[in-house]
Amino acid sequence: MCDSSNCFPLQSMETAKAETLCIFGTGDFGRSLGLKLLQCGYSVVFGSRNPNSSNLLPKGAETMSYAAAARMSSIIIIGVHREHYGFLPGLAEVLKGKTLVDVSNNLKINQYPESNAEYLAGLLPGCKVVKAFNTVSAWALQSGTLDASRQVFVCGDDAKAKEAVMDIARSLGLMPLDQGSLLAANEIENYPLQLFPMWRLPCYICAAFTVLIFLYCLVFEVFYPLTTTKEDTSYLIVMTIPNRVFPIVSLILLALVYLPGIIAAIIQLYRGTKYSRFPNWLDQWMLCRKQLGLVALAYAFLHAIYTLIMSLRYYVRWWSNNYLITQIKTNNTYPFSNYNAWLSDSYVALGILGFFFYVLLGITSLPSVSNAVNWREFRFVQSKLGYLTLVLCTAHTLVYGGDRFIYGAFYRWFLPPAFVLSLIIPCAVLVMKFILIVPCLDQRITRIRQGWERKSRTVCPGH
Amino acid sequence: MCDSSNCFPLQSMETAKAETLCIFGTGDFGRSLGLKLLQCGYSVVFGSRNPNSSNLLPKGAETMSYAAAARMSSIIIIGVHREHYGFLPGLAEVLKGKTLVDVSNNLKINQYPESNAEYLAGLLPGCKVVKAFNTVSAWALQSGTLDASRQVFVCGDDAKAKEAVMDIARSLGLMPLDQGSLLAANEIENYPLQLFPMWRLPCYICAAFTVLIFLYCLVFEVFYPLTTTKEDTSYLIVMTIPNRVFPIVSLILLALVYLPGIIAAIIQLYRGTKYSRFPNWLDQWMLCRKQLGLVALAYAFLHAIYTLIMSLRYYVRWWSNNYLITQIKTNNTYPFSNYNAWLSDSYVALGILGFFFYVLLGITSLPSVSNAVNWREFRFVQSKLGYLTLVLCTAHTLVYGGDRFIYGAFYRWFLPPAFVLSLIIPCAVLVMKFILIVPCLDQRITRIRQGWERKSRTVCPGH
Amino acid sequence: MCDSSNCFPLQSMETAKAETLCIFGTGDFGRSLGLKLLQCGYSVVFGSRNPNSSNLLPKGAETMSYAAAARMSSIIIIGVHREHYGFLPGLAEVLKGKTLVDVSNNLKINQYPESNAEYLAGLLPGCKVVKAFNTVSAWALQSGTLDASRQVFVCGDDAKAKEAVMDIARSLGLMPLDQGSLLAANEIENYPLQLFPMWRLPCYICAAFTVLIFLYCLVFEVFYPLTTTKEDTSYLIVMTIPNRVFPIVSLILLALVYLPGIIAAIIQLYRGTKYSRFPNWLDQWMLCRKQLGLVALAYAFLHAIYTLIMSLRYYVRWWSNNYLITQIKTNNTYPFSNYNAWLSDSYVALGILGFFFYVLLGITSLPSVSNAVNWREFRFVQSKLGYLTLVLCTAHTLVYGGDRFIYGAFYRWFLPPAFVLSLIIPCAVLVMKFILIVPCLDQRITRIRQGWERKSRTVCPGH
Repeated sequence: MCDSSNCFPLQSMETAKAETLCIFGTGDFGRSLGLKLLQCGYSVVFGSRNPNSSNLLPKGAETMSYAAAARMSSIIIIGVHREHYGFLPGLAEVLKGKTLVDVSNNLKINQYPESNAEYLAGLLPGCKVVKAFNTVSAWALQSGTLDASRQVFVCGDDAKAKEAVMDIARSLGLMPLDQGSLLAANEIENYPLQLFPMWRLPCYICAAFTVLIFLYCLVFEVFYPLTTTKEDTSYLIVMTIPNRVFPIVSLILLALVYLPGIIAAIIQLYRGTKYSRFPNWLDQWMLCRKQLGLVALAYAFLHAIYTLIMSLRYYVRWWSNNYLITQIKTNNTYPFSNYNAWLSDSYVALGILGFFFYVLLGITSLPSVSNAVNWREFRFVQSKLGYLTLVLCTAHTLVYGGDRFIYGAFYRWFLPPAFVLSLIIPCAVLVMKFILIVPCLDQRITRIRQGWERKSRTVCPGH
Repeated sequence: MCDSSNCFPLQSMETAKAETLCIFGTGDFGRSLGLKLLQCGYSVVFGSRNPNSSNLLPKGAETMSYAAAARMSSIIIIGVHREHYGFLPGLAEVLKGKTLVDVSNNLKINQYPESNAEYLAGLLPGCKVVKAFNTVSAWALQSGTLDASRQVFVCGDDAKAKEAVMDIARSLGLMPLDQGSLLAANEIENYPLQLFPMWRLPCYICAAFTVLIFLYCLVFEVFYPLTTTKEDTSYLIVMTIPNRVFPIVSLILLALVYLPGIIAAIIQLYRGTKYSRFPNWLDQWMLCRKQLGLVALAYAFLHAIYTLIMSLRYYVRWWSNNYLITQIKTNNTYPFSNYNAWLSDSYVALGILGFFFYVLLGITSLPSVSNAVNWREFRFVQSKLGYLTLVLCTAHTLVYGGDRFIYGAFYRWFLPPAFVLSLIIPCAVLVMKFILIVPCLDQRITRIRQGWERKSRTVCPGH
Repeated sequence: MCDSSNCFPLQSMETAKAETLCIFGTGDFGRSLGLKLLQCGYSVVFGSRNPNSSNLLPKGAETMSYAAAARMSSIIIIGVHREHYGFLPGLAEVLKGKTLVDVSNNLKINQYPESNAEYLAGLLPGCKVVKAFNTVSAWALQSGTLDASRQVFVCGDDAKAKEAVMDIARSLGLMPLDQGSLLAANEIENYPLQLFPMWRLPCYICAAFTVLIFLYCLVFEVFYPLTTTKEDTSYLIVMTIPNRVFPIVSLILLALVYLPGIIAAIIQLYRGTKYSRFPNWLDQWMLCRKQLGLVALAYAFLHAIYTLIMSLRYYVRWWSNNYLITQIKTNNTYPFSNYNAWLSDSYVALGILGFFFYVLLGITSLPSVSNAVNWREFRFVQSKLGYLTLVLCTAHTLVYGGDRFIYGAFYRWFLPPAFVLSLIIPCAVLVMKFILIVPCLDQRITRIRQGWERKSRTVCPGH
């Protein structure tokens, strides 16, 4: 039902369900699925080219020729690779009217022009082809550790055949998900080959900014002292510089989450319609905003912990002690400064509140949470709270900067400190957003988004 | 299947599926849905009052008169507002036996006595009305960013019609959820208009306590020094006072989560039955306990970070340094106190453990986690672990108080420090709970909750 | 639809749905379900032995003899305990062809050799038995607080009967989940009796290690000073010792998550096949790896907070001040050491990064997140990122150890410091993993896992 406990739920009831299923092919996946089906009370026959040579099969399963095996069952699981589908049309007579379950996967995404299941349906027009089980791993079936995903995506043009296959999946303890007609097979076949496709672009962007800012800080904090005062500050590489890189990149990425929305609004305002496709790069960018935001949150989290641990670091403790000893030795104590207390506390408080809303945004982007809110609530959280987070984090950086913006001592080789760079995109986004919510512009965008057009024209889908 | 990657999954297969769908009305939602349907391989015809004037429609879709369009398809999507349903009875002949999909939304919750879909079913008794798609936004359909909720709530009295509509939703990449008969339409229509209805009361309660405690602390920490010693401690407003308000309000809210359960038990004990409705305010309160607890957790989280960052604050560093300098100058060092070490560590450890269980409670209230536990496990976590959290957090505050409870120096203008106030409700809740788990009372409550009554009587549903 | 708001969604429409449902038995669950059904618009008749004596029933429901009640409805909810099923065969005539809904639960897991529903089906072969509603609590139905799980597991051999029961569940605002044939009844009946079965073993392991390491540290940190220098360091029990126990046990548990995988690989290599069952203890161990990892994460979280709060503790502040005062008094200041800065920062940074990936692993094990990734992605996260976490945390401990490994001063009574013990299992796991990814071994394991065998033989399912 919920956890791995029911991996072998029906193991001891092998006699109960006498339904016979046929599996074509004695490869690893066919054998694993066969064993699992046997454990769950099904009868299993294997169809094979050489019925006698296959002595690796699970005990209890018979092996016969393809035709003989197919006659035993109304559901035939095709456990051979697409490349070997060639023999199937020869069995068209035997297979007529039966349900063929295509479990195949490819080695590459979009390897063939059409999906394996559609290709199979084309080869055998008299059969009901159902795509299923391809997202389940043979190893997981065998070991019973179905921790990952128990989802079995199922699609097919025949509703009854699909339902029968979904029932089999259910009795194996899996969770079948109806994906509609066989048109979905292409996507279902690509699914298990993907490795975080939506995360690739955000991670590249993040890596690029990380390297750039790291090198900038390296020049600023290590090379500059080394060349000017021969001071060795290489130990800053371990924590101080990362703790500059993380917040800077995090703030930039957070701003990049909201920048495409602003660009889209400007394009819509300019074109005077919403019925024209955005440029492709903008579409790509908008689709990966969630991932971009989560990468930004990860960096903000690291920044938070790097900062909180600060007082335990040898470097910080030494300087703090040294500062105190110097004060005492020179008998030169500084009076309490209300201004400093306000500034330091404001900067810290803004950062904490920003981080708090950051985490809130992260929690609401969990699938189970975002599924439980309606569109209006989602927009409220992601847009209103998102901008609030951006404002708080930008303010955090601005107050942190404080007097440092103007004091030349912080500029080295005429370069500004790195945090100044981090403010460019966020401030630009906030200024543009501020302009866009001016009533006259805001009303126009709202009208455009409700379908109004500056001049009416025919909409063309797909371009 | 899972993420935004499949927003246009079938875009390039427009030829494959020839099924024709009819959309009445050429408003924004109708057009967006039409475009999406076209992209997914359906044929689309629009029904319109003035078939020739609508030149905004997606290319590939035909526009005709209502009657002509309705004849083309067995499923008609009614994309007009409820106010304009008037023309439909005139088409009763043409629409007879067909499936009408009501996609309409209202502007206000419970705007009409009956739902739009039920009203439509009443207008056209010969049709199978299905409510669907109203939770999907036109903008999301168009832009393909279905990040928020892909859920499409579907209800209807005819199972086959409902299934057909759910199939359409699936082929658009949406997730249809069967909500039963047309009686559910009212709720489905209210759903997209809600803005966190369950969060409203907890947020109001939280805001009220926050303001009250903040003002109390302001008087205590800022006005008192200002009027008595002319000392300006206004900088405390930024972090010190919030870091008093957060834990105090958090503890009070956590106690308020468990108070209604205790009141309910007392009422049941007094009435000697569970078959009588609680007063309305208690029902309301009990229904928002989860949200109340999560708001309390948010404040506890803020308190944790505000506390952890403490050693970095200018104010704290200055006083710590000043204390040390004074010690050295006066040559007056304090010996290590075992008692202080025990007290300070206990108070911190209790707080951390309390926060830990707080976070655990928060995690188990995530929808996907609470769905994976059974009722017994849920009760164990929310009741047992919840009370443990309350005990730990109350103990944390009590030990924090330590000697301060009795030393008059901490009372200003005869007012106790704010943390004393925070203890009233939690301690009351814990004392009452302690009384209620005395065996003789506990047994009686258990019996009452299992259906036993002091004196038997007829149960009346609904009051 | 989503939250408790729809607990009484249809309360005011009692007239609409005239379908009559029959409930056998007037116990607490029967009454609660009856009341809820009445509120949702169904007609309800109760079947009872003594139709006149039951005056506790919800108003609006009729009570009759069993036979009379059964004649009123095609669906009969059997609200009596399995022990009282005895009267049912006598009604076989009346019940013939009807749907019986078994809602019963047992007091113990696997109390009877067969499930109640299967027993019922055996008693009345002419009826369609559906198991449902047993996971819902009477109290939850009555109070409307269905916070926990709205899931209703449904199973049965007759598809139409099952669908009808699922429709009833849906109209009560519950979420029916089809679990397949009546074979699943046993598991469905055990489900509500479970109390975190998968968490038991990990918690025992964790508790054992916690007690052992705590006692070891107690001897090392408290008894040793007490017996050798009569120093009272008992205050270390509150925070210092727990903050040693948490990271040590966390690291050991994390290593134990990856150890069974290595043992399994060695067994497979040795046996030269994957088609032979692992020993039972290894299977058990592998099935609770996720829970083991989450317990380890909980301890890592506690370690993180205990460490971050450190600078606020009286004990730490006193020693830090004392150290400074001694420095000043003896006029003996230490120069800044680059080596120390590198060492201290490296150790802290490794710990933070390890914790970061730890948290990432925890987030991806949330059901809703792990359902949204495919098998390849899940393997990537849990295996690659998991080992990265283990490497980082082990390195964190090694660098923490630093010079302490060799300096005898840290050995007391010839015992090594506790952190040395924590390194044994993680280092062993990492060394073995390192050996296993040597190309020649890795290739062989991969081939074995793809179904290759050193010598072919028949596979026997189930042993």
